[in-house]
Amino acid sequence: MISPIFLFVFSFILSCSYALHVQDFCVADYAAPQGPAGYSCKDPAKVTVDDFVHSGLGVPANTSNMYKFGFTAAFAFNFPGLNGLGVSMGRADVEVGGVVPIHSHPGATELVVIGEGSSIIGGFIASNNKVYQKPLNKGDTMVLPQGLYHFFVNQGKTPAVIYASFSSESPTVQLLDTSLFQNDLATDIIAKTTLLDAAQIQKLKELFGGTN
Amino acid sequence: MISPIFLFVFSFILSCSYALHVQDFCVADYAAPQGPAGYSCKDPAKVTVDDFVHSGLGVPANTSNMYKFGFTAAFAFNFPGLNGLGVSMGRADVEVGGVVPIHSHPGATELVVIGEGSSIIGGFIASNNKVYQKPLNKGDTMVLPQGLYHFFVNQGKTPAVIYASFSSESPTVQLLDTSLFQNDLATDIIAKTTLLDAAQIQKLKELFGGTN
Amino acid sequence: MISPIFLFVFSFILSCSYALHVQDFCVADYAAPQGPAGYSCKDPAKVTVDDFVHSGLGVPANTSNMYKFGFTAAFAFNFPGLNGLGVSMGRADVEVGGVVPIHSHPGATELVVIGEGSSIIGGFIASNNKVYQKPLNKGDTMVLPQGLYHFFVNQGKTPAVIYASFSSESPTVQLLDTSLFQNDLATDIIAKTTLLDAAQIQKLKELFGGTN
Amino acid sequence: MISPIFLFVFSFILSCSYALHVQDFCVADYAAPQGPAGYSCKDPAKVTVDDFVHSGLGVPANTSNMYKFGFTAAFAFNFPGLNGLGVSMGRADVEVGGVVPIHSHPGATELVVIGEGSSIIGGFIASNNKVYQKPLNKGDTMVLPQGLYHFFVNQGKTPAVIYASFSSESPTVQLLDTSLFQNDLATDIIAKTTLLDAAQIQKLKELFGGTN
Amino acid sequence: MISPIFLFVFSFILSCSYALHVQDFCVADYAAPQGPAGYSCKDPAKVTVDDFVHSGLGVPANTSNMYKFGFTAAFAFNFPGLNGLGVSMGRADVEVGGVVPIHSHPGATELVVIGEGSSIIGGFIASNNKVYQKPLNKGDTMVLPQGLYHFFVNQGKTPAVIYASFSSESPTVQLLDTSLFQNDLATDIIAKTTLLDAAQIQKLKELFGGTN
Amino acid sequence: MISPIFLFVFSFILSCSYALHVQDFCVADYAAPQGPAGYSCKDPAKVTVDDFVHSGLGVPANTSNMYKFGFTAAFAFNFPGLNGLGVSMGRADVEVGGVVPIHSHPGATELVVIGEGSSIIGGFIASNNKVYQKPLNKGDTMVLPQGLYHFFVNQGKTPAVIYASFSSESPTVQLLDTSLFQNDLATDIIAKTTLLDAAQIQKLKELFGGTN
Repeated sequence: MISPIFLFVFSFILSCSYALHVQDFCVADYAAPQGPAGYSCKDPAKVTVDDFVHSGLGVPANTSNMYKFGFTAAFAFNFPGLNGLGVSMGRADVEVGGVVPIHSHPGATELVVIGEGSSIIGGFIASNNKVYQKPLNKGDTMVLPQGLYHFFVNQGKTPAVIYASFSSESPTVQLLDTSLFQNDLATDIIAKTTLLDAAQIQKLKELFGGTN
Repeated sequence: MISPIFLFVFSFILSCSYALHVQDFCVADYAAPQGPAGYSCKDPAKVTVDDFVHSGLGVPANTSNMYKFGFTAAFAFNFPGLNGLGVSMGRADVEVGGVVPIHSHPGATELVVIGEGSSIIGGFIASNNKVYQKPLNKGDTMVLPQGLYHFFVNQGKTPAVIYASFSSESPTVQLLDTSLFQNDLATDIIAKTTLLDAAQIQKLKELFGGTN
Repeated sequence: MISPIFLFVFSFILSCSYALHVQDFCVADYAAPQGPAGYSCKDPAKVTVDDFVHSGLGVPANTSNMYKFGFTAAFAFNFPGLNGLGVSMGRADVEVGGVVPIHSHPGATELVVIGEGSSIIGGFIASNNKVYQKPLNKGDTMVLPQGLYHFFVNQGKTPAVIYASFSSESPTVQLLDTSLFQNDLATDIIAKTTLLDAAQIQKLKELFGGTN
Repeated sequence: MISPIFLFVFSFILSCSYALHVQDFCVADYAAPQGPAGYSCKDPAKVTVDDFVHSGLGVPANTSNMYKFGFTAAFAFNFPGLNGLGVSMGRADVEVGGVVPIHSHPGATELVVIGEGSSIIGGFIASNNKVYQKPLNKGDTMVLPQGLYHFFVNQGKTPAVIYASFSSESPTVQLLDTSLFQNDLATDIIAKTTLLDAAQIQKLKELFGGTN
Repeated sequence: MISPIFLFVFSFILSCSYALHVQDFCVADYAAPQGPAGYSCKDPAKVTVDDFVHSGLGVPANTSNMYKFGFTAAFAFNFPGLNGLGVSMGRADVEVGGVVPIHSHPGATELVVIGEGSSIIGGFIASNNKVYQKPLNKGDTMVLPQGLYHFFVNQGKTPAVIYASFSSESPTVQLLDTSLFQNDLATDIIAKTTLLDAAQIQKLKELFGGTN
Repeated sequence: MISPIFLFVFSFILSCSYALHVQDFCVADYAAPQGPAGYSCKDPAKVTVDDFVHSGLGVPANTSNMYKFGFTAAFAFNFPGLNGLGVSMGRADVEVGGVVPIHSHPGATELVVIGEGSSIIGGFIASNNKVYQKPLNKGDTMVLPQGLYHFFVNQGKTPAVIYASFSSESPTVQLLDTSLFQNDLATDIIAKTTLLDAAQIQKLKELFGGTN
């Protein structure tokens, strides 16, 4: 058998020199500075398996709202092991008759698989205004190309569970409704830049808590 | 003086071997296949300086529409030298009282400089619904981070000329109005996924030529 | 109401000029040349919603093999809408007592969510040889950082369904067993470069159909 | 109308969880560590619209130098909102008869639009030594592919204003003259590695303040 | 001659404004936070030429181990000037009859040139299990595509010196043997997920110092 | 033993479905269209180990020129296996007293190791005009950050062999001398944009074969 001395030499050269310095991952240290590429890396010595496992997607999100829709994220901000790795997930729950409101993800593509449910219309709108939509059933996947408006409508008879993957560990979401109506953007500016009627704008500002 | 023989040897090694095969650029060949990274490259022997120069931004765009706004693009689709190089430009003309309607660029950041005009409100909406807006004057630059809704309103007394740069040679644009109202997306689906009233939707569908 | 003439002008400028040339997506054309960034793009006029929807993940994969494991891919090679978009999915089925054998994905990170099942050990091995492993239950997610060995063992009492997302639309997979034992790599070379015994190698070559 | 309670729940889930943690932008914090991808991000709570607006390009740069040329940058180092977004701008002023001296931008492509002026020769040199040059007039755009030598010569009768966009938020510039003649690189080394005469080198070192 | 005043103005504008803020490189500061894109940048004022020069590859690595193989890295962790620049090198020494054991580099391609030696079998295994192998001699180069298993066997009559380049400044390495046998991964799990015999696993765990 | 039937099923699912469609590499097909990301991929069925091995760096390049320097490239244009993989190599031979003339690589970082020779001055010039230079000996490595001017001077007593790695499979090279003097760029333009004397320019144009 090979002498343990040789083994020590070998593992020193090939393991220590790498292991102390080079990282396979960059688990998020939320307390350190953040940069354009993501969070700073946690001290590798403090990383545990729990940084790579997240348990939030096992329970339905609260759907007690006007869309009958809830979303639970497993993104880098609450799942530190994802930092820098270019992928994340979320779970959308949509009650019968509910919808995922029109929104887009600036710079991230979304890929969904229907975990539960049927007759769920998935759709997106291309930049030439063409609509791509289709009813989806359990096990179907649909891709929503980066940055484009998309939506889901649960026309089935059972609640839908949609698992969504993203091509970014930190996707952002821009909801059409809250972007327009849940802030202080002046009604006049919204009217001019969207051609919506002032009365419509004010009605939705009231609903979403917007001002001006 | 060094013998021309040596020069020949030198230039053969250092120029020919590179020049015939390695490219500093990949001028678009619109007739060949396109891939995720852009257009195929034109035969370098057929590339001329005109592939790198574009003359469309010298004249105002037609602003005879409801927004009093026009846009002229110098993107890879009409400026072949940009292919693969990660930057493009456009010129927006906005009449007095006109607007650039709310839109976003999936995956591209926009950086504008005001070429002509004053008191032009530039604004964008972050994904937490916060509005960042400010009046801009000639020479001011404003950045519109990738994928976020943004708009301009010319509140000045002269037409505005806005030069826009993009962090992509092929930016796409998603206009809120035409995305919702210039296609066959069912009024019922729009209503449910945006909470806009059906009457409002139908009014704008009529304006933009949408159906359903 | 605004004149349709104005609308025509507007849509010509803002829709046609973009829509004919600039693409939000690059649906794979499997018959055209492939490049380092992916497949060539299909003619946009021939793209339909079916290019963005894939139905293969609704049924269990065949698990009649020695690992009691099957995998169904929704990757760019069989889901053309994913081309160039940087994300893909798959479904792993693991019978009671079955395993996902040790493998790695060169250059792609995997993020799984347990769709069905419990007590499924998920694990990966870092390049400093440290093992990160934990039992996973329905709804748990685990990230397997790019290029590292990983595996699953179903120690629960029901079959496991694991939905896997990847940070690439075309992830590849390198299985330890088939890489070593399902080809003509000489037993002597395997023995020297892995320190496995020749008898062990030959036994597994026989099992996997390898030669030499 | 929908109950405000529901709205609260909705906005808590969809706005707060994202808004506190996920960022659409990474405004530069010049006081924190800088990394290969750019500056650290400023605390989002301290970001204002002024981080996204820069006013330096409205006035001509000082052109009182031997090239009759001045440049004003709106780069990430003085325009914090650009950090991480992959685009920046600058303004070059070139007097009648003046030039933009030969330089390159390591790793960034430049795209210019002529804001004012005419008969401005724009040119670049490819790595096979071929020169691409053309007179440019107001409104013309020209692309200077990444890393290649380029220059402008104002042969017109009015001062030129050139707006330049870059495919990086932090482009660097390497000027041929100052690189060779405004430092302590030994005349002997310059002579050997450029074949310039020692007398020429010393004349220009004197002009630019170089030594050795 | 041009007045020094002009020169001062010129160099102030073109050198200072850039030089103080924009960096051509980001030399690693090992004491500051690390992020997904690499180490933080050292204060440019403290950077010296020694940050860009590394002297470790001039001497053979210790090959006193069972593989008769040693490796010396010039990676970002010990060569600070490489940080963020996407390339690194190493030197492998392989005695007569020695091997570079089977390993992979998650996410990095390796390109080797044989510095000394002959009849060195270089090989890699593709994800379809096909083996690509060939004897290499001094001056030969071979590319090992990212993430794939590869190995070398010195079948020549002299020690081999192999210079290896990597497409990352911080490549990681996953050795098959130490990944399986130099940790506490349970023999039972290894057996099930690799189909290796328990006796074989225990023999190698003993050799490499693994437990369980 | 496990039944071969099971094996067949297993390998069909896990090998064939991937192997026919997903590629670990994209070996250059020089006859098919080239795009911004590189050459099209060769039919995988026609790929052999020879696509991954290149033998050109074993012999010295011709150094019979005024710099006493020769360079041999192993780039994607002549080493098809490198296509898309982000790394390449070259070999520079520099006679005693010879130099590698000042040049830059647009967008690629170079990392050299001295294979043979001593007292070889390696240097680069940062964009703030600071020179970083140092004598290098056998086994020393030096990094030349992307896009910056660099050079080597062999001040030793033996010919130098320098192995150079690049962070691109298709680096380009811009030589200061040939860029200025081996084309038809007008002497007047060169003079104005470099401040070199016309006599100097014409002398070097004559040497390099330039005109105008």
